[in-house]
Amino acid sequence: MAAAARLVSTTLARSSSLAAAARRPDLLASSPRGFSSMADSIQRSGSGDITRVLFCGPYWPASTNFTKESSDLCHYTDSDNSVYIFSALVDEVGLEEVPDVIQNYHLCVVKNRRLDSDTIAKASQMKIIMQYGVGLEGVDVNAATEHKIKVARIPGSTTGNAVSCAEMAIYLTLGVLRKQKVMDTAVKRKDLGIPVGDTIFGKSVLILGFGAIGVEIAKRLRPFGVKILATKRNWSSDTLPCDIDELVDKKGGPEDMYEFAGEADIVGIVDHKFLSAMKKGSYLVNIARGRLLDYDAVFNHLKSGHLGGLGIDVAWTEPYDPEDPILKFSNVIITPHIAGVTEYSYRTMAKVVGDVALKLHSGEPITEVEFVN
Amino acid sequence: MAAAARLVSTTLARSSSLAAAARRPDLLASSPRGFSSMADSIQRSGSGDITRVLFCGPYWPASTNFTKESSDLCHYTDSDNSVYIFSALVDEVGLEEVPDVIQNYHLCVVKNRRLDSDTIAKASQMKIIMQYGVGLEGVDVNAATEHKIKVARIPGSTTGNAVSCAEMAIYLTLGVLRKQKVMDTAVKRKDLGIPVGDTIFGKSVLILGFGAIGVEIAKRLRPFGVKILATKRNWSSDTLPCDIDELVDKKGGPEDMYEFAGEADIVGIVDHKFLSAMKKGSYLVNIARGRLLDYDAVFNHLKSGHLGGLGIDVAWTEPYDPEDPILKFSNVIITPHIAGVTEYSYRTMAKVVGDVALKLHSGEPITEVEFVN
Repeated sequence: MAAAARLVSTTLARSSSLAAAARRPDLLASSPRGFSSMADSIQRSGSGDITRVLFCGPYWPASTNFTKESSDLCHYTDSDNSVYIFSALVDEVGLEEVPDVIQNYHLCVVKNRRLDSDTIAKASQMKIIMQYGVGLEGVDVNAATEHKIKVARIPGSTTGNAVSCAEMAIYLTLGVLRKQKVMDTAVKRKDLGIPVGDTIFGKSVLILGFGAIGVEIAKRLRPFGVKILATKRNWSSDTLPCDIDELVDKKGGPEDMYEFAGEADIVGIVDHKFLSAMKKGSYLVNIARGRLLDYDAVFNHLKSGHLGGLGIDVAWTEPYDPEDPILKFSNVIITPHIAGVTEYSYRTMAKVVGDVALKLHSGEPITEVEFVN
Repeated sequence: MAAAARLVSTTLARSSSLAAAARRPDLLASSPRGFSSMADSIQRSGSGDITRVLFCGPYWPASTNFTKESSDLCHYTDSDNSVYIFSALVDEVGLEEVPDVIQNYHLCVVKNRRLDSDTIAKASQMKIIMQYGVGLEGVDVNAATEHKIKVARIPGSTTGNAVSCAEMAIYLTLGVLRKQKVMDTAVKRKDLGIPVGDTIFGKSVLILGFGAIGVEIAKRLRPFGVKILATKRNWSSDTLPCDIDELVDKKGGPEDMYEFAGEADIVGIVDHKFLSAMKKGSYLVNIARGRLLDYDAVFNHLKSGHLGGLGIDVAWTEPYDPEDPILKFSNVIITPHIAGVTEYSYRTMAKVVGDVALKLHSGEPITEVEFVN
């Protein structure tokens, strides 16, 4: 790792002369700011004048790369390929190395790394553990709280994440309805007009857990000519737009999911008890979390033909074994966990991470993320 | 081919005792009706008491099968696998055999068979040549007219064909934006979060030739957050819904296509001069006719990177060579000409063909199809 970059602030570095100098950070005098003006409980550690940002693991590489490249920020790459964004240094570290180096970092972008209490206990300088997106299942939030580390997600509704995921849900839905694998085989065999696909038109779609992504899915599905059923713990939540009755034909709580399952042709996400309550021939699409589906139940329902098709962007373990028997069914399609991975959402979130790093360094209030502890 | 089936009419055959007998057509007395009551120019030939229906070639097999199975019709399969629908006999014949047997048929479903003037000249008993859908490019309509044969298509807006094609256009669009082939490779290589896709959100979409399918595409794209540009010869046509200004942001004639090309990120269909007018990195989706694209121009624009991706349901020759160099680009996806092939549209169109056959037999006016001559 390289010596400290000494840049002073966003404002300074954005001025044109200093922007040029920023590419040679050794030319700039140090003027680190503390975190004292931050509105929340994040305190500056005694770590000197560099804010170090840790990206965990090699997956979703664009999260690291886009953050390093974020066009709104001046950045500098030294001979060791460490990248400085003003006073923040961004490193990507292998999944297994994380516990050995986490003590050197102030901000951690967790991606799919599990951060258990042992690892968190070692993070002696850590101020914020955040996700490049919304999912924080792998983070022991209680342990983080104990160690006075804030845990944050980037709300999906403003970054394009929900929009990207909704588009992906529709892609997977169309993929299973049109029998993507059978189409590929038909092309290879020089068939034409095979297979007969199915339309979204005329179907009932059940969205389980109607949050930011569910709203975006429902908006897009509306003109396809569908009935939309949805479940949500609390429909009075002000996080949803007010025209919700325009989007959803039938609203229910988690307790209604089995009843709704019998009505639906296409389902958003499910838990395992749910599968046999679904209509025969229903399609299942999962862009949420792989473990929401019970593997054996899904396998058996595919084998029996009760499940008409499965489209998943997330799997039981990740990356998923491409030779897994469930992927051998001709009506199963899988994508490499990229529902939220688009230029739009990833560039937007890269800017959020960069801004959080800068504000952590300068001590300004951090408002772009949603803290969960 | 089997002996003539002798069923009398829709009404009779639908009565339960006759429906049973319909499976043994030899048990029923002949009572053929002429075509004399038909409202158009179709005349009965002296062909006896069976209306014979010819499906050309093995492709789009569901068109033949669904017509044979059409649940509203009683049908009978004899030992030669010929299928009788009341007094209509439905055969599928290999593409090369068509000229040798066409003289035996009264109704022809052309599919992708070219019907040139030589073949049509042999169709001495033919009354109607129709498409299982809308495309009649392969039919020499003038030759048909000379031989007093009516040529017809099934309007797409009422059968689900336009809806099915619109859904397919969106599937292909999402497929190229999300880099379907690269996703498949990522799954096989056990990568995660690769590739970074692109969203429909924020794009400008140009629909060239804004007809029934274009309307359905625009309706569905609206909530994705796009700008929609469209060209059409005559915007005052009453075939379009009246809220067209809600659907299309910028309307033009065919003369505007090059100007519009420079604005668009995603394009519906193009001719060859169009490609270099497109924005660098634009995506091209073709669900119309393969020959609308100039092969060399497309190849070269893919090679140079000017074209960001290509999604095609139709190709230059069909079935298309799966080893064609154009399919080797990682940003090209192809489907086996199934845009309109869905349960919904194919069942609906099967009923149309069955009804046309029955009406041709009984002499009732045929209103389900659109005659072009």
